[in-house]
Amino acid sequence: MTITGIAAIGAGLAAIAAGIGIGKIGSSAMEAMARQPEMHGKIQSSALILAAFVEAVALFGVVASLI
Amino acid sequence: MTITGIAAIGAGLAAIAAGIGIGKIGSSAMEAMARQPEMHGKIQSSALILAAFVEAVALFGVVASLI
Amino acid sequence: MTITGIAAIGAGLAAIAAGIGIGKIGSSAMEAMARQPEMHGKIQSSALILAAFVEAVALFGVVASLI
Amino acid sequence: MTITGIAAIGAGLAAIAAGIGIGKIGSSAMEAMARQPEMHGKIQSSALILAAFVEAVALFGVVASLI
Amino acid sequence: MTITGIAAIGAGLAAIAAGIGIGKIGSSAMEAMARQPEMHGKIQSSALILAAFVEAVALFGVVASLI
Repeated sequence: MTITGIAAIGAGLAAIAAGIGIGKIGSSAMEAMARQPEMHGKIQSSALILAAFVEAVALFGVVASLI
Repeated sequence: MTITGIAAIGAGLAAIAAGIGIGKIGSSAMEAMARQPEMHGKIQSSALILAAFVEAVALFGVVASLI
Repeated sequence: MTITGIAAIGAGLAAIAAGIGIGKIGSSAMEAMARQPEMHGKIQSSALILAAFVEAVALFGVVASLI
Repeated sequence: MTITGIAAIGAGLAAIAAGIGIGKIGSSAMEAMARQPEMHGKIQSSALILAAFVEAVALFGVVASLI
Repeated sequence: MTITGIAAIGAGLAAIAAGIGIGKIGSSAMEAMARQPEMHGKIQSSALILAAFVEAVALFGVVASLI
């Protein structure tokens, strides 16, 4: 579980991946809700499904740096 | 709990992830509230759910640099 | 509490995280208030909640560089 | 209080954080005042509250480089 | 008061911070004055208050590089 210094940079870069990806999805989801308020529920569930894909890879990248 | 210098860069990069991600989601949430004021509560809860995903990976990345 | 030179770069990067994130949220909050002046209070409280998430990770990243 | 050369880069990066963050908030605050002149006081106080969050982390990052 | 070469890079980065931050605030202040000429005084004082926050961190960063 010891982590070398350079591996930590990899973990940080993987976290940035989640930041960019989920940030862009969430940003557009908010705007979509504003334009179609009655679609609130469907937009939120779709955003969560897509965000889960980004989350999975990002967390995998952070964990990979720990091994 | 000693942290080498280079691992601190990883912690910093992970923090930038939260900055980009939550920044983009929050930015659009503010604009969405301005366009649909009556949707204030639902937009805020959706924004918090999506921000929690980014927060999780970012905090995980910072903690990973500390181990 | 001695901090090596490279760890200071990590603290700087974590501070940039707060700059990007809170900057984007605050920027849109100002514009949202201009468009919906009567929503001033709710927009401000929502902006502070989301900014707190970014603040938490950024401060955690700076402190992590000090340990 | 001696600061190595590389730690100065960290202090510089932390200063950029304030530049990006407060710059974005202030920029939008000016435009918001132009659009809603009668909201001048509330926009200014909201901008200062959010700018204080960025300022706190940025100053903390600069000081961290000095220790 | 001797400054090594790398510390000068930190001072330069801190100066960039003031450039980005005060540049954005000043830019929008000019445009705001052009749109609301009768708000000239209030916009100028608000811009100076916000610019002072950026200036404080940037100057602190440059001084930190000199120590």
